[in-house]
Amino acid sequence: MSKQPLSRLFHPRAIGVYGASADPKKIGGRPVDFIKRSGFEGPLYPINPNYPEIQGLKAYPSATAIEGPLDLVIVAVPAPGVVAALEDCAAKGVGGCVVLSSGFAEAGGAQGEAWQAQIVELSRRTGMRVVGPNCMGIINVRRGILGTFTPSAEGSGLKPGRISLVSQSGAFGGFCLALMRQNGIGLNLWITTGNQSDVDFADCVRYYADDADTNVIVGYIEGITDRDRLIDALAYARSKEKPVVVMKVGSSDAGAAAAASHTASLAGADQVYDGLFRQYGVYRAHSIDEFFDVAYACATASAKPKSDRLGIVTVSGGVGVLMADVAAKVGLDVAPMPEDAQRQLKEYLPFAGTRNPVDMTAQLVNDLSLFEKNFEMLLARGNYDTVVSFLSSVGLDKNLNQEIIGQLRKVLAKYPGRLVIMSMLSNQEVRRMYEQEGLLVFDEPTRAVRAAAALRHFAREQARAQTLDAPPSLPAGVRKVERGALNETQAKEILMSAGIPMTREVVAKTADEAARQATEIGFPVVLKIASPDIQHKSDIGGVLLKLADAEAVRAGFDTIMQRVRKAEPNARIDGVVVAQMITGGVETILGVNRDPVFGPVVMFGIGGVFVEAFKDVAFRVAPFGEAEARAMIDEVKGRVMLRGLRGAPPADEAALVRALAQLSSFAAANADVIETIDINPFVVLPAGQGAVALDALIVTRD
Amino acid sequence: MSKQPLSRLFHPRAIGVYGASADPKKIGGRPVDFIKRSGFEGPLYPINPNYPEIQGLKAYPSATAIEGPLDLVIVAVPAPGVVAALEDCAAKGVGGCVVLSSGFAEAGGAQGEAWQAQIVELSRRTGMRVVGPNCMGIINVRRGILGTFTPSAEGSGLKPGRISLVSQSGAFGGFCLALMRQNGIGLNLWITTGNQSDVDFADCVRYYADDADTNVIVGYIEGITDRDRLIDALAYARSKEKPVVVMKVGSSDAGAAAAASHTASLAGADQVYDGLFRQYGVYRAHSIDEFFDVAYACATASAKPKSDRLGIVTVSGGVGVLMADVAAKVGLDVAPMPEDAQRQLKEYLPFAGTRNPVDMTAQLVNDLSLFEKNFEMLLARGNYDTVVSFLSSVGLDKNLNQEIIGQLRKVLAKYPGRLVIMSMLSNQEVRRMYEQEGLLVFDEPTRAVRAAAALRHFAREQARAQTLDAPPSLPAGVRKVERGALNETQAKEILMSAGIPMTREVVAKTADEAARQATEIGFPVVLKIASPDIQHKSDIGGVLLKLADAEAVRAGFDTIMQRVRKAEPNARIDGVVVAQMITGGVETILGVNRDPVFGPVVMFGIGGVFVEAFKDVAFRVAPFGEAEARAMIDEVKGRVMLRGLRGAPPADEAALVRALAQLSSFAAANADVIETIDINPFVVLPAGQGAVALDALIVTRD
Repeated sequence: MSKQPLSRLFHPRAIGVYGASADPKKIGGRPVDFIKRSGFEGPLYPINPNYPEIQGLKAYPSATAIEGPLDLVIVAVPAPGVVAALEDCAAKGVGGCVVLSSGFAEAGGAQGEAWQAQIVELSRRTGMRVVGPNCMGIINVRRGILGTFTPSAEGSGLKPGRISLVSQSGAFGGFCLALMRQNGIGLNLWITTGNQSDVDFADCVRYYADDADTNVIVGYIEGITDRDRLIDALAYARSKEKPVVVMKVGSSDAGAAAAASHTASLAGADQVYDGLFRQYGVYRAHSIDEFFDVAYACATASAKPKSDRLGIVTVSGGVGVLMADVAAKVGLDVAPMPEDAQRQLKEYLPFAGTRNPVDMTAQLVNDLSLFEKNFEMLLARGNYDTVVSFLSSVGLDKNLNQEIIGQLRKVLAKYPGRLVIMSMLSNQEVRRMYEQEGLLVFDEPTRAVRAAAALRHFAREQARAQTLDAPPSLPAGVRKVERGALNETQAKEILMSAGIPMTREVVAKTADEAARQATEIGFPVVLKIASPDIQHKSDIGGVLLKLADAEAVRAGFDTIMQRVRKAEPNARIDGVVVAQMITGGVETILGVNRDPVFGPVVMFGIGGVFVEAFKDVAFRVAPFGEAEARAMIDEVKGRVMLRGLRGAPPADEAALVRALAQLSSFAAANADVIETIDINPFVVLPAGQGAVALDALIVTRD
Repeated sequence: MSKQPLSRLFHPRAIGVYGASADPKKIGGRPVDFIKRSGFEGPLYPINPNYPEIQGLKAYPSATAIEGPLDLVIVAVPAPGVVAALEDCAAKGVGGCVVLSSGFAEAGGAQGEAWQAQIVELSRRTGMRVVGPNCMGIINVRRGILGTFTPSAEGSGLKPGRISLVSQSGAFGGFCLALMRQNGIGLNLWITTGNQSDVDFADCVRYYADDADTNVIVGYIEGITDRDRLIDALAYARSKEKPVVVMKVGSSDAGAAAAASHTASLAGADQVYDGLFRQYGVYRAHSIDEFFDVAYACATASAKPKSDRLGIVTVSGGVGVLMADVAAKVGLDVAPMPEDAQRQLKEYLPFAGTRNPVDMTAQLVNDLSLFEKNFEMLLARGNYDTVVSFLSSVGLDKNLNQEIIGQLRKVLAKYPGRLVIMSMLSNQEVRRMYEQEGLLVFDEPTRAVRAAAALRHFAREQARAQTLDAPPSLPAGVRKVERGALNETQAKEILMSAGIPMTREVVAKTADEAARQATEIGFPVVLKIASPDIQHKSDIGGVLLKLADAEAVRAGFDTIMQRVRKAEPNARIDGVVVAQMITGGVETILGVNRDPVFGPVVMFGIGGVFVEAFKDVAFRVAPFGEAEARAMIDEVKGRVMLRGLRGAPPADEAALVRALAQLSSFAAANADVIETIDINPFVVLPAGQGAVALDALIVTRD
């Protein structure tokens, strides 16, 4: 059956409460109590066969007993009765049910698992949407839909706004509600997805992306099971220019440490999420303050900063410098005012700092006309796309702020698209006055600057999305990877066929053959034992470097053979690999690791201490194009090595970019077979000379 | 004249207001208005010859006209009258004057400068203390001393507490006052030092360190001019176990980029402050939230965490993981509960996460008896010195919290010295209930964890202070540095005489002499041109490495001479340096740079990209002992290189520690002469083999 649209849950014409209780403090009583008093305009039907009337409303024995349309039903009956209630709802043609009851898969017992499986089946069969079970409910603040039992939803405490929230955790969702209520942050839609038998995180992101009253999608993620649906939803939200802010906790990953390959040990699930979020322009918050600061900024701001240029105006020089420090940290450009504009400022603000930050000193409060003049100068002459203004405790005085807002309105009308953020102690009334103009107010000046940076992040990501190219196609003769052990030579041949440059190398069976091949490849060469049974070749002396002529190669062949026979007498020996010796360039590491959820994930890092000691690596979910590969390189600190550190020539980043994108397409095409790929080192030669892998390893899935 | 004690300013028996105004909104009227209504118990004397009575109080024509003791006078007369007012106060025997008036050195004119010089002279001559001019005043909340004109001090809004604040910026000080008032954070003493004609930042730190009602010293620094007084004050505060929290803004330093030497270009003034703060255990905050969170925690906490062990208890698993993530970032140890204790927890909390974080789920709110049981387990079995408890919005319910506090009191009585921090939405009344028990309350869970880390920081620094050794003494035969150019050999000889190990090297005039010296030093050796005129020796081929025998040395000598004569025909040539060749080990960089305020500052970094690309360096003000040198090494990320990365042997850190401490003593002893010292590379050999400098440069002051 085709699925019912989520609009029937978020914008129902009529609501039922299954298992409605007369006690407004009980789980089945709270939603009745809340919705009754919330201003919801449609009918509310308590459903409970034991009572003719509940909380003053006529009660119905079943959903099917109700006449007229019924879009949303909140289900609060105990677990054993849930499936029957849902069947009744489906029979009635309900759009969606929100199951608050617990005692399903989360309880860990076979009975709960079975019931949940029945719910999944029912939803698939009937098309009726199911939220939960074991969830905290659903809210649409504007419509008065308070389908939840969390006390934080009670009464008129929730202010309608343009933030829509989806949380995989009920406790977290409830806390957010309480916090938004306490801090006067406006909310639009709210849902907690519980056990996600049907409606999941990705569904809600996609729904919010289309919702006209939603400016920003805010999500709390515990874990994702369906890669494609999440990626599609995030990409869809980006295409609709709806910023997504997430909190995803759990930066440690015990499992990864035990993983076999080098790439795998670095690819903790958390870094994969990080890579995915960067890929889709999602803002990941690391504290609850940050989570709501960014959400509030996105929901409220009248404009998106078109550049990194930030103007800072203060009544305290010191706070201005503090803000400039933070701005530099978060990538904003505190560019100075032009010299002549600074001279003009000095004329009417003789004690002021005029460079940027502009310190208006306490004079401002004595002569508010300075405010308009000053902002005019900042926007016209400083050409700042964002201005953050620190005004100490000025926000506590309503009249003063009415005057300031009037002035700002005049100036901003002349410079549309510019954004002003205030930082000052204030009260909710004053904050609301600013917010109505699309101006933000923060108590704390560094948080105001960070919010400006977050808005700039989204503007930058919107622009970047336009530049993203498709993942490259693979060359015509590309070889498929088959399951089973692959030796180094096979791995290199396969990767070379996929368009990733590899050093020239051949396996020689005899010393003479080695010498002949070396002469063909060109000296110097490297010799390496070729054996499917030996992993750490250099540890047993199985590698010789810089062999400069045919004689040295002949002798080297024999040396290696002797060492290997002694160290690993039982190893199968295919011969000795003769390979081109590369000198110079910057050593990098390219890798692929199969994530249990996200499939093949490409890793990039600069060789040496960057990866070893600092885990300075970037991840992206495969496949991706060259623009994304470039973003990966920009993400690692070790990128300085590629850009001509200490007089070294800049490296051929274009070749590196091509290889990364190519590797991502190859990994995606072989997603079902590949466990890991390590290309280490991948040497990036000076610009114009390309890049080449010296070594490669492919491990296939068992 | 000996200076009057600051206690006469902060705890005056009687207060005068010079230039008192009848208008309570004017600068000279506000302090009268504020103090009149503040509950100050001593007499308040308006001083103004033009009125017999001001704001209902008898006014006096001068300070000398007042009978009885007069400790503190607030001066608000216009700048031209300030000196005369101060002379009058000094004649009366006033303890200290707080000059609110502006128009002095800060105004930039000669007249203002002259008046300020007169104030400085007057204070020195009479011993009367002067705060300001151009300051925002002084406050003692408990005593009702509101000697300021900032509106934030008005009325009963300020809550007495145990934080004492000193700010070099009036605007910042005023903002702090408004913020503490708004957020209900208790304040003890407050002062803004303005132009610091007499009383300065260090004076106040020292005074607060002795003040019985001060638990934590909170400071805002714009710039320091007297190194020794600041250092003494910080050391004194540490000896009194008074935590110091500072905000010092300005992390960019345009001047440093232009500096000549390598070390100098890294030693921006900001990093020097950072080094100094680390040296004296000062906590540097980077946002105003952090500034007050740490201050509040220090002022309120009933105990100092004796270890890094942190227990986390929540009603939301996700928030618990978020807190654990942040705890790991800030160096706390979220150690798991013992297995058997976890089993016991499971018995009465079947759905709970029991490892740590312990997730008590919403059950907690239904059965509060779980709370005591749970905390008993955490403290007794988990043995956590700090427990952070996230309770969502529980803090909004007074009765619930009375019950929780009762339970916590019982448990904590059994485990004295343990610290509990709550994170929950709450109101001021509930917060106060906890604070009276020495328990902290934060809205935001990550800020609660960071506050725990800050408290642990101070406990750790207190312990570390006990282990600090004195700076090492210099060897008997140490050579003094004289002004003037020093060549590399001279620099190395001087540093070697100071106890810093150097490679053996001698200057040879002929090829034969070079060969003979090389034989004595031991092969392989390095040859380097010795010339006072050539700085970049290797650029012109003036360096040869790895010369393995006498013959190679002889040939090398001639090669170098030929190259140098060709490249630099006019350079003075002293011969060729024959030096011990060091292989292996970890290259580090030791440096000294003269800071205009703090004098010689020692720098340490690991060689290579760490210093070049990441500016991964540590600074300390010279001199210091070995414990501090060890802290410097621990501070840089590159330290991993010293500790046996990728199977390399661990380096001889003891030798590095000795060299750093020795260098600091040497730099301090030659503080008046040295501009910079670069010891680069300083090679730290494998443990037991010592460390040795290959190259050194000393630049003296002009």
